[in-house]
Amino acid sequence: MTGKEVRACQAAVLHAPGDVRLEERPVRDLAPDEALVQVMAVGVCGSDVHYYEHGRIGDFVVRQPLILGHECAGVVVATGAAVTRVKPGDRVAIEPGVTCGRCPACKSGRYNLCPEVQFLATPPVDGAFAEYIVHREDFLHPIPDGMSFEAAALVEPFSVGLHACARAGVRPGDTVAILGMGPVGLLAVVAAAAYGAQRIIVSDLEENRLAAARRLGATDTVPAAAGAEAILALTGGQGVDVALETAGHPKALATAMAVLRRGGRLAVVGLPPQDEVALHIPRLSAYEIDVLGVFRYANTYPRGIALLASGRWPIEDLVTDRYPLAETKQALERARTNKAGSIKVMVYPQA
Amino acid sequence: MTGKEVRACQAAVLHAPGDVRLEERPVRDLAPDEALVQVMAVGVCGSDVHYYEHGRIGDFVVRQPLILGHECAGVVVATGAAVTRVKPGDRVAIEPGVTCGRCPACKSGRYNLCPEVQFLATPPVDGAFAEYIVHREDFLHPIPDGMSFEAAALVEPFSVGLHACARAGVRPGDTVAILGMGPVGLLAVVAAAAYGAQRIIVSDLEENRLAAARRLGATDTVPAAAGAEAILALTGGQGVDVALETAGHPKALATAMAVLRRGGRLAVVGLPPQDEVALHIPRLSAYEIDVLGVFRYANTYPRGIALLASGRWPIEDLVTDRYPLAETKQALERARTNKAGSIKVMVYPQA
Amino acid sequence: MTGKEVRACQAAVLHAPGDVRLEERPVRDLAPDEALVQVMAVGVCGSDVHYYEHGRIGDFVVRQPLILGHECAGVVVATGAAVTRVKPGDRVAIEPGVTCGRCPACKSGRYNLCPEVQFLATPPVDGAFAEYIVHREDFLHPIPDGMSFEAAALVEPFSVGLHACARAGVRPGDTVAILGMGPVGLLAVVAAAAYGAQRIIVSDLEENRLAAARRLGATDTVPAAAGAEAILALTGGQGVDVALETAGHPKALATAMAVLRRGGRLAVVGLPPQDEVALHIPRLSAYEIDVLGVFRYANTYPRGIALLASGRWPIEDLVTDRYPLAETKQALERARTNKAGSIKVMVYPQA
Amino acid sequence: MTGKEVRACQAAVLHAPGDVRLEERPVRDLAPDEALVQVMAVGVCGSDVHYYEHGRIGDFVVRQPLILGHECAGVVVATGAAVTRVKPGDRVAIEPGVTCGRCPACKSGRYNLCPEVQFLATPPVDGAFAEYIVHREDFLHPIPDGMSFEAAALVEPFSVGLHACARAGVRPGDTVAILGMGPVGLLAVVAAAAYGAQRIIVSDLEENRLAAARRLGATDTVPAAAGAEAILALTGGQGVDVALETAGHPKALATAMAVLRRGGRLAVVGLPPQDEVALHIPRLSAYEIDVLGVFRYANTYPRGIALLASGRWPIEDLVTDRYPLAETKQALERARTNKAGSIKVMVYPQA
Repeated sequence: MTGKEVRACQAAVLHAPGDVRLEERPVRDLAPDEALVQVMAVGVCGSDVHYYEHGRIGDFVVRQPLILGHECAGVVVATGAAVTRVKPGDRVAIEPGVTCGRCPACKSGRYNLCPEVQFLATPPVDGAFAEYIVHREDFLHPIPDGMSFEAAALVEPFSVGLHACARAGVRPGDTVAILGMGPVGLLAVVAAAAYGAQRIIVSDLEENRLAAARRLGATDTVPAAAGAEAILALTGGQGVDVALETAGHPKALATAMAVLRRGGRLAVVGLPPQDEVALHIPRLSAYEIDVLGVFRYANTYPRGIALLASGRWPIEDLVTDRYPLAETKQALERARTNKAGSIKVMVYPQA
Repeated sequence: MTGKEVRACQAAVLHAPGDVRLEERPVRDLAPDEALVQVMAVGVCGSDVHYYEHGRIGDFVVRQPLILGHECAGVVVATGAAVTRVKPGDRVAIEPGVTCGRCPACKSGRYNLCPEVQFLATPPVDGAFAEYIVHREDFLHPIPDGMSFEAAALVEPFSVGLHACARAGVRPGDTVAILGMGPVGLLAVVAAAAYGAQRIIVSDLEENRLAAARRLGATDTVPAAAGAEAILALTGGQGVDVALETAGHPKALATAMAVLRRGGRLAVVGLPPQDEVALHIPRLSAYEIDVLGVFRYANTYPRGIALLASGRWPIEDLVTDRYPLAETKQALERARTNKAGSIKVMVYPQA
Repeated sequence: MTGKEVRACQAAVLHAPGDVRLEERPVRDLAPDEALVQVMAVGVCGSDVHYYEHGRIGDFVVRQPLILGHECAGVVVATGAAVTRVKPGDRVAIEPGVTCGRCPACKSGRYNLCPEVQFLATPPVDGAFAEYIVHREDFLHPIPDGMSFEAAALVEPFSVGLHACARAGVRPGDTVAILGMGPVGLLAVVAAAAYGAQRIIVSDLEENRLAAARRLGATDTVPAAAGAEAILALTGGQGVDVALETAGHPKALATAMAVLRRGGRLAVVGLPPQDEVALHIPRLSAYEIDVLGVFRYANTYPRGIALLASGRWPIEDLVTDRYPLAETKQALERARTNKAGSIKVMVYPQA
Repeated sequence: MTGKEVRACQAAVLHAPGDVRLEERPVRDLAPDEALVQVMAVGVCGSDVHYYEHGRIGDFVVRQPLILGHECAGVVVATGAAVTRVKPGDRVAIEPGVTCGRCPACKSGRYNLCPEVQFLATPPVDGAFAEYIVHREDFLHPIPDGMSFEAAALVEPFSVGLHACARAGVRPGDTVAILGMGPVGLLAVVAAAAYGAQRIIVSDLEENRLAAARRLGATDTVPAAAGAEAILALTGGQGVDVALETAGHPKALATAMAVLRRGGRLAVVGLPPQDEVALHIPRLSAYEIDVLGVFRYANTYPRGIALLASGRWPIEDLVTDRYPLAETKQALERARTNKAGSIKVMVYPQA
């Protein structure tokens, strides 16, 4: 091992719904291919809030105390004996899902579908609301000097947008509709712009989020209530090339189907509260639409870092609320309760 | 113009639901890029039966007397002044949709999505239950000497299967599930085999259709009642690479979703009676499934002819019922009423 | 026909190498699907200069007086009886190759490979160095109000860059090397940026062209003499994701091969003076490189217009020399003789 | 560890060009993710012969005694503590390249481009001309009961053909030309057939190899001397959709370029003796040909096993010569000297 030795650190631990406590937790020994990272910034994700509130997401149940947080960045402070990709002092974005590298999904380049993935803050794997975290070196991605840890933490939700655009085949000059302007939707605006979309039409219930979208490059904003007609009208009735559903709402999915042109592609990013959602099959058929499931991302980090580090987009404006580690519970509450006033809540474990 | 002149011919004309009459109808003059084809064989399609029974399919309404039939083949007997692709005497498969060649869909290679397509037997365009038909030369595809007109007519429904396999990216060695063993499903078995599928699992309500599927290369047959569990069990729980839904039934669509492996692709070929069908979004997302609408086909005829002409598959066994033109009404009735005993009903306008 | 009637107009006609004369030429009658366009701006392309200088390009020989010019834009002044896509008064970019729409290449979406294409300024088809031109409506693309005719004319060489990037699969965050900074290479810089390339490394012999590239978004410029080592060094030895060869020089092709990373793609845009060029096969194999021929473009105009009209890039700076129609010969001479001082030479037929 | 313990075994060791000796060699301990395989059949590859004859291939130099052989299959006899994919008694095909799973190539699904690959019989990694071999479990692929070890060993060269067809995008109904009918070329015939190629035109110098190709499904055979004209004539001048160059000869590469249709794809599998080979750039450009490097394969084994196990092709006929381990030198000599009479030479370490 090379670098600093840390045997224990402070962490925000979820014990039960609503019960988050700052505690000292042991830091596990480094395997030869792992590094110890001092965590500098961690975004609060909707899934963190869901675990905090309900203690579960679908089949994933918090059965023992769990550290949340998976949108994170930090500084490498120690490395295992076999580590070659990073060294102490490196500033890194942490890609939270550690995959097996050996199953058919991994070997075919779709490692986000690895059934053996260890994903931060998904029970029973601890996450990053902690001063230090141990992670496998190949999921630590160095960031350039000028890039903030906040921006590096945002590479995680940005990756979802990049992956959705890749799945949907966004091409330069395309018109893209994005339904839902939560943090994932907002960063999907940036992703669509990075893919060269010329027209980016977005929709949400909240005006503050539409305003944020405009600052990031959305060319047209439509209140969610205006629906498919308003979006179609913006395209002169032609329909959009690609739609991204990030709202997790059946109505948004129906809107997405209704605004696509012939041959259009729909990436489904959001998860609606109910499992079964109606799809309009005659439209799917007559327009030969592609409906594409999106699950996390793969192979997005280096390009995501390059794009966000370029400074082309004012992404740090997305961070509306900042908390030290000791106030992680407040951070989760803020994210849970204030969707109109808040966009991305960030926790700083070293503050 | 070169070749035989025909000013009128016998045709089976639909006047109202259930009312089909043999009548003399004028044959229109050839445009310079058109050819006159003596029709030798015409398959009865489910859409013909639907127009015959209900007088409409969705927004397409039979408002004036209409000739049905679009799965057809024949012999070129005359050609317009500018025709270069075919000549009198050529035996041809007739690709029924004549497209504009100039819209974005046509120019990008997806001419099946051309909004200006003139498709045989889709109101108000007359079809092929007639002694002669006029068609644009570039949609007449010469067939080899040894290929029957019946086989050439079957290239049309076979094209749907080929296109579905292309959309779904079937690869050699794949395991493919096909739900619904009507003629389109049965020819999709052949298409999947042509794409190299190693395992073809099919499902239907009718045993005679499962037996037909086995003769065409299906490796496993599952009664529709056995559902997703039976199909999954055949794959050792792994799931199939690709599913093709040709049954047009919500339950089949749900089965298809449930049997796909991670990263699997689902081509939706069948149209269910209701427009809205529930889709399981958590599965779509977590498995990153592609749900792909399929509308007719594009660029399939030459390869479809080559494949069916190879003699690798006993496709002519699919023709279970044969009628002369004068009995087109009986042919439509047969197709309407006897799904257990009949597979493909064929009309022979020259008999 | 609707609109203005024009029976003859002034045109710059090539009679023999070096012999260009301003003459009155008849304007042909409009077919029902054609429009008459008043030509406002025409770029001088390297192929124009080649015909001007040598009277031929490969098998294409100027056997009768020929009007050159194919990078053009103008205003619709009359339309044939069946025209629906444009109307008199529309400002349009003219896509110069009119394709058959019926061959396998056209039907599969690769209409740039149509063997029956009629391409402006390719013998024996007259081009656009004329006051008026007749063209099929589906190759006239309306441009927005704020877009200049110069920018619209530049959509033609820009299309080559867009098509090359599509062939080579440029993705956001990629590093792209472009060899050769003639107008096509310079517009390929814009295309690569539109595809989201984060790092664009360019090479040329002339410093004025490298400077122009920097203004358009090239992030690194390398004198051609510095070769592959300099480019590799810029990537820390990793190699580039994509290389575009637009120089038409064997050494540039070798450089492109040498700077690609494993799995890299090389689009070959330029035509070298000799037909046979050596390729390093062990590299092609061990790195699994894709070497992709690029011939003109297909389906690029609407997106090319949207991108150039966005104002994101100062493309009009590329126009360094401007001539009226009467001085077309001087324009060709300027393009022929002054590569160090001149970039794009433009002719204005109405001036 | 579970299963049989083996501390040493017999192996055929290359000490210097032409110097192969049967020796006892230690068998290394199993890592937790490795298995011990009793080797049952090993094909002799051209690369084995090249190392045997010259002691090197390009930069790969035999600097210490080396065991050759990498086309192999056997029976698992012991497994490391963490092994879950195979168990003692499993009959397996051995995929010879063990990759890192963590580099960009591996993570993007192109693990054949992994720079850290450990590939059997590539210096300094020992190969399979031995009674036993230790290999990582995820590169051991169980084979069905009815499949012979010979067939399982042939999955290795077959994989090259499958990968070449995947790279070149062979589609059902395609016409494919394959230049060179060595074992890789012959198995590429099978691969092309598996991809649905309807017409497979092959070329070689040796009549016995053309005859073998016909038995495997080649539809047309052309003596190498007949060249491009003969192949073009077979397609009525249209050209082929895909060409696979497996001969490793500049003339074959030129032939491949010359017989492709517009939009055709060329996979370069063979390595010519010289590094630099001339390519016809005007053809590459005007026909927009894809020239695709092929390096080994990725993700082919399970499908390759399924296809060869199907019994559709008489692949075991390819094995023309059989030797026990003690005669590995004779096996290599046979492969080196008798290309007219021999196709695939196989070594049986347990005989």
